[in-house]
Amino acid sequence: MTPVFLNESESAALVDDALALTAAREAFLATATGSTFPVVIGHSSSPHNRFTLKSGSAGDLVGVKVGSFWPGNTGLPRHSSTIVLLDPATGRLRAVVEAAAANAYRTAAADALAVDTLARNDSRTLTVIGTGHQALHEVRAVSRVRPIERVLVVGRRADAAREFAAEVTARTGLAADPADAQAGVSAADVLVTATTAREPLFDASWVRPGTHISAMGADGPGKQELPVALYERASLFCDLPDQSSTIGEFQHTSAVPVALGSVLAGTAAGRTSDEDVTVFDSSGFALQDLTLAAALLHRSRGDVQ
Amino acid sequence: MTPVFLNESESAALVDDALALTAAREAFLATATGSTFPVVIGHSSSPHNRFTLKSGSAGDLVGVKVGSFWPGNTGLPRHSSTIVLLDPATGRLRAVVEAAAANAYRTAAADALAVDTLARNDSRTLTVIGTGHQALHEVRAVSRVRPIERVLVVGRRADAAREFAAEVTARTGLAADPADAQAGVSAADVLVTATTAREPLFDASWVRPGTHISAMGADGPGKQELPVALYERASLFCDLPDQSSTIGEFQHTSAVPVALGSVLAGTAAGRTSDEDVTVFDSSGFALQDLTLAAALLHRSRGDVQ
Repeated sequence: MTPVFLNESESAALVDDALALTAAREAFLATATGSTFPVVIGHSSSPHNRFTLKSGSAGDLVGVKVGSFWPGNTGLPRHSSTIVLLDPATGRLRAVVEAAAANAYRTAAADALAVDTLARNDSRTLTVIGTGHQALHEVRAVSRVRPIERVLVVGRRADAAREFAAEVTARTGLAADPADAQAGVSAADVLVTATTAREPLFDASWVRPGTHISAMGADGPGKQELPVALYERASLFCDLPDQSSTIGEFQHTSAVPVALGSVLAGTAAGRTSDEDVTVFDSSGFALQDLTLAAALLHRSRGDVQ
Repeated sequence: MTPVFLNESESAALVDDALALTAAREAFLATATGSTFPVVIGHSSSPHNRFTLKSGSAGDLVGVKVGSFWPGNTGLPRHSSTIVLLDPATGRLRAVVEAAAANAYRTAAADALAVDTLARNDSRTLTVIGTGHQALHEVRAVSRVRPIERVLVVGRRADAAREFAAEVTARTGLAADPADAQAGVSAADVLVTATTAREPLFDASWVRPGTHISAMGADGPGKQELPVALYERASLFCDLPDQSSTIGEFQHTSAVPVALGSVLAGTAAGRTSDEDVTVFDSSGFALQDLTLAAALLHRSRGDVQ
């Protein structure tokens, strides 16, 4: 079998939110039976240029995502992603998928899946903390699964928040305004954090009953977006409990989060009332990348989804 | 920059012992300044089908080797190898090299480099324990760096040893004969073990003064080819001391081996007399794969080496 290679422009042309959400659902359901292996964090000869290896297997998927973060890149994205799939029958190379653009859809799809599973059905106000490239993907993906009418944007710099709000409206048609952290958090039905923060972005007391919070940023030791005080009155969910408690948001608490896959599979409870505060922490896992790559390959062959 | 893809038949046609030895020398010299990251051992949904991830960086090389071992393969190799190189300037995918055939040259080249660095110049008898695919590569690579006149083959099964000896003669023109373990070990100037053993293959008292031993097999917890008693009177060398003491041959001793790269660089002593017994343990490291892939890419472009 000849390996298949999808390059960056091919995968970027194939990906969309619907494909990414289907792949995310498959990945989260597979967490119960699939395997993920220890995450490697490496670097190039310039130690600030970092890569991560996330590997796993589930069903007929087995492989690794090589994610890279070159902070000094100018004129091209700082993040890249390459997914390598092995043939489950022989162990030989099955496919290589460059997926820098698709990776942003994959991450936002995990958020959308969590919102679709955990947020109140009548969620209309979405607040996003963070004004980067990923934040726009989060807004678009979340607004596909809930009747979002208004977006509030919280940024460290007022001008960045203003510009981002204008971009949200231009790209999605949604009303969007900058807000300070307290106003944004206290108005949110759904609150998404998409930053590289290393300390809490808001005060736990600002969160209203019924709010759903998706914390997308923490994926390494020392990273933190949420205030620990929030956990006393919230239901905690994540992608992979072990990983979330090590390199994700829940490294800062001894509380044990519930796997979102268990909620999807019906073996654990999700939201139990309109007053619950639900928190989902995404640290990212290989099965998301493997199902994404498989879905892109499937679509590239013109197969009916 | 468009990524380059070298498939299995292309890399198999490009590789030879000279290319692999040059790449190995570069890799071992780079161990002093380069970085290697934790090795991941994963598996497919069938847990006996395993893969390893070995990643590292040195100079302008950064990437990962995905090695796979599917023990049930029939009619095709059980081992496969895919090397992924990132662009050191941008972190984007630079190249993918399928390297199942080339991987055997890469492993044998580490052995040849160790023999060339540590064995007596007048080494004429080579004994190999193991009759598998890799063992033939070892005989060929070692006989290129020392004036080997006779090969002795030790195998668990007499018929396999006989067949392998005949194949050695057919492929290399060298005189080759089967031998039992004691006769083979006690006659060796260079002794190579290339097995998947989990206990010592011979008695330490059989080893003559002046012998060089390369242990190629141990690359995981519980694996062992050499008798620990040997270490009392031998000088110990390896590729990566930390790794060799964890998953290599020296996991079974508290003695600290010397990095072969330090000997090559002139910062550590190698053999000091014709009476020394020298032992080299190969557990394999990513820089070997990265330099191999770079050399194959170099040759594929037709560049003058």
